[in-house]
Amino acid sequence: MPADPRFFLRAGPFSLAAVVEAAGGTVRGAPADPARLFVGVAPLQSAGPDEVSFLDNRRYAEALRATRAGAVILHPDMADRVPAGTIAIAAAAPYLGYARVAAMFHPEPPPRPGIHPTAVVAADAEIGEGCEIGPYAVVGAGARIGPGSVIGPHAVVGPGVVLGAGCRIHAHASISHCLAGDRVVLHPGARVGNEGFGFATTAAGEHVTMPQLGRVILGEGVEIGANSTVDRGSGHDTVLGPGTRLDNLVQIGHNVRTGRGCVIVAQAGVSGSTTLGDFVVVAAQAGLVGHLSIGSRARVGAQAGVINDVPPGADVLGSPAWPVREFWRAVARLRRLAGGGDGKAAAGTGGGEEAG
Amino acid sequence: MPADPRFFLRAGPFSLAAVVEAAGGTVRGAPADPARLFVGVAPLQSAGPDEVSFLDNRRYAEALRATRAGAVILHPDMADRVPAGTIAIAAAAPYLGYARVAAMFHPEPPPRPGIHPTAVVAADAEIGEGCEIGPYAVVGAGARIGPGSVIGPHAVVGPGVVLGAGCRIHAHASISHCLAGDRVVLHPGARVGNEGFGFATTAAGEHVTMPQLGRVILGEGVEIGANSTVDRGSGHDTVLGPGTRLDNLVQIGHNVRTGRGCVIVAQAGVSGSTTLGDFVVVAAQAGLVGHLSIGSRARVGAQAGVINDVPPGADVLGSPAWPVREFWRAVARLRRLAGGGDGKAAAGTGGGEEAG
Amino acid sequence: MPADPRFFLRAGPFSLAAVVEAAGGTVRGAPADPARLFVGVAPLQSAGPDEVSFLDNRRYAEALRATRAGAVILHPDMADRVPAGTIAIAAAAPYLGYARVAAMFHPEPPPRPGIHPTAVVAADAEIGEGCEIGPYAVVGAGARIGPGSVIGPHAVVGPGVVLGAGCRIHAHASISHCLAGDRVVLHPGARVGNEGFGFATTAAGEHVTMPQLGRVILGEGVEIGANSTVDRGSGHDTVLGPGTRLDNLVQIGHNVRTGRGCVIVAQAGVSGSTTLGDFVVVAAQAGLVGHLSIGSRARVGAQAGVINDVPPGADVLGSPAWPVREFWRAVARLRRLAGGGDGKAAAGTGGGEEAG
Repeated sequence: MPADPRFFLRAGPFSLAAVVEAAGGTVRGAPADPARLFVGVAPLQSAGPDEVSFLDNRRYAEALRATRAGAVILHPDMADRVPAGTIAIAAAAPYLGYARVAAMFHPEPPPRPGIHPTAVVAADAEIGEGCEIGPYAVVGAGARIGPGSVIGPHAVVGPGVVLGAGCRIHAHASISHCLAGDRVVLHPGARVGNEGFGFATTAAGEHVTMPQLGRVILGEGVEIGANSTVDRGSGHDTVLGPGTRLDNLVQIGHNVRTGRGCVIVAQAGVSGSTTLGDFVVVAAQAGLVGHLSIGSRARVGAQAGVINDVPPGADVLGSPAWPVREFWRAVARLRRLAGGGDGKAAAGTGGGEEAG
Repeated sequence: MPADPRFFLRAGPFSLAAVVEAAGGTVRGAPADPARLFVGVAPLQSAGPDEVSFLDNRRYAEALRATRAGAVILHPDMADRVPAGTIAIAAAAPYLGYARVAAMFHPEPPPRPGIHPTAVVAADAEIGEGCEIGPYAVVGAGARIGPGSVIGPHAVVGPGVVLGAGCRIHAHASISHCLAGDRVVLHPGARVGNEGFGFATTAAGEHVTMPQLGRVILGEGVEIGANSTVDRGSGHDTVLGPGTRLDNLVQIGHNVRTGRGCVIVAQAGVSGSTTLGDFVVVAAQAGLVGHLSIGSRARVGAQAGVINDVPPGADVLGSPAWPVREFWRAVARLRRLAGGGDGKAAAGTGGGEEAG
Repeated sequence: MPADPRFFLRAGPFSLAAVVEAAGGTVRGAPADPARLFVGVAPLQSAGPDEVSFLDNRRYAEALRATRAGAVILHPDMADRVPAGTIAIAAAAPYLGYARVAAMFHPEPPPRPGIHPTAVVAADAEIGEGCEIGPYAVVGAGARIGPGSVIGPHAVVGPGVVLGAGCRIHAHASISHCLAGDRVVLHPGARVGNEGFGFATTAAGEHVTMPQLGRVILGEGVEIGANSTVDRGSGHDTVLGPGTRLDNLVQIGHNVRTGRGCVIVAQAGVSGSTTLGDFVVVAAQAGLVGHLSIGSRARVGAQAGVINDVPPGADVLGSPAWPVREFWRAVARLRRLAGGGDGKAAAGTGGGEEAG
């Protein structure tokens, strides 16, 4: 069953050879015609003979057995489990391969160059070649938007903001006080450059705003989820390193800095002046206090409350956060103390998996 | 004291008979003139003799004694506690009865049919009879909006979106990649149909977007709170069953499915591919990891961290979540361990109640 | 290094005398020419000889030693640690002093009076003198906006809303059912006056909306962060007292009342009908259940889950929340139980600080 054509453009069809190349894999088992055509991608459970699917997780091995997909991208170890009639495309990284094949069949619609008559674009704003500026978008004085970018309906690009090439600022997002690289994406309702939560309090209890005089620097390829909020710096800048991705409803406080490729999952929050290295993962609903240093490749678990620095590569969980192993040991002890069994089977039957 | 007429339309006055019928109750105590007129509703503490109030919670018994309300909707057991001069309307479900009486006095303003001259509506969009499309609303190519719907100022209805009859898309909400039934409500700033947080990561740490090729299916009567985010599916759809309600700042990940009448309270989050049965309640700030199955009528407590399936009807609390009884036992043990008293009176004096 | 002139207006230069006066301090050490000019403010690490900095936290004593700032506002105890060539401005409240100096150099841009031609302003709305109404703003029937207020691009001020003087409603914010005092600020995407999460449920499981007939009352100087949500009352009003500040992504449920100067940090949530006294601090990601009473100057810690009243001045932490001292004792006991060290050094090396 193909992706709903009301919502998704489709390119192709593409040959098996093209699919195999995009997937970075090789065909296993019976020889197959490299010119065989495929029209799209679909999950195992709904794919048809002219569609490509993938298997990335043994949990779905049953779905593999029952699939009608014409081809499945999967790990070499699983290649012999495809049903008769399904071509096995073995790839070391099936999920990545499928991402590339799916993007081949469903490329992001290119910008439709032009400025909607209702867009309000300041006279001295510079709009790069091939940009699409949508209905009711507002582009402020002195802003610069790189070529091939898309500014969606009602998006607001503030005065002086600089965006690189190929950026996508979706409907209702707003961005101010910001310098962004190429291919930066703000999903609907994202808010970048807001005044951070800084104020001094008089003896009488009156809060006096501390002017927030920094900016937000977004590296190339940074993506910010729907309704997430990234505050500008107070004097220094707030910096998200290249390739860093924020999910929805994430809060980034003033002066936070991340390295490259960090991943911050839904509803997590990073308090002001905390620094993340490269490839740090902060799971859903976690919170980090301010002025911490989180080392590269550290992983902060779901709902964790981090109050200390975390060394590179460490895994922490709990509130306050501990090394993961100790966290589970504490849960097990507490469980026994309360007269129950093992902490991990704490609720109900069967298994789920850790947040991911 | 009536509802502020600057903000709330008022219908009526209505007779006692009409009020009693809407409330689904019966008059208790001294006979009362069924033609007596009432002009509105108000809380016990502020209602006057021509207003109707309600009592749903013994906590407010004192307020009942002191009320000047002309009539009070309440449980039969409390009917004899109304002050002299106040009519007791006994109903098995007082809160529900009051909701119906309040809606009678303050009906939702009907749509004012018409398309505001500033709305941008695609030429091939189909707008049903009696719809109200507000200032700066944007309705995309091929969208279909059912009769009697209201699209508020600045709302964005994406290309191909289908909305049933009587929908209300409030100011600043955005909805894409979505098929919605009748009477669906998006509160201000809600974001439906966003690209979910799916990407593959190369060996070098670069995140490569996985195209999210599913949709959002909203059953009839679904309501989504202010600034909440509901991501479309990755291949399958994200589905919210009929009557399901989301509070504000809730996150629903891609491929989540709920049955009917689920309730998800403010700032809770449900990770991708988790399934809820019917009438599941997820309390404020709770988090559920992905790929779980939560049985019908289960209740997930405030701030819980659910990492396992939850059976139908179960009550869980804590992070990781446990059956409620065990959670409180553990809290009590921990409390004693730390040298304090009983977990439930953990902070301060007097009582509050569990999240509701 | 000055604040980026693309984004920040700069006033001045100002003399040392003016700086000292604004800071509420006195010059220490070697006499300095009161007419010496300064051009701006900057953090210690980047300030130059014609800029003013501050030190508020011994953690940055090293940065003080190395600074090239022309003057530093700091506590008298630290005055003798400024480098040669840097003027020490001793002040009892350095952070407050710096806030005032920074605001002197970078005043908030005044409103540019006028109504943008694309703004939709109801015929009977009253716009005070000197207001700035931005592109695509919508001001509803009967709304009243006090003099010197700024309504940003795409902001929506609902019918009947009353705003005092000098209010700032930033881009994409929406406000309905609200009476606000002077100098109220809504940051981008803030949503005030939404219909709260109130409904009755029939025996068959159908949720029936309870009309929310109250309003939101915002005291003077209230500030609401980006994408935060404040629901109107159900019959009574939701009230935020003068000077209360909400950070980003905060949820305030219907009928909540706060006293003056409360501080609610990012992603925290206060459930319906809970009351806060004056100067209560609710830290990041904390949650309070409904119908509680939180005494003045109480402090609710990060990620706390408050289920009981909190007395004035108390400090609570944990979920369920306990007095802070008992919380840390419990963490230490749990730590020992699990075979580890002291709870506070739970994760990694070095120190962070509690949420602030």
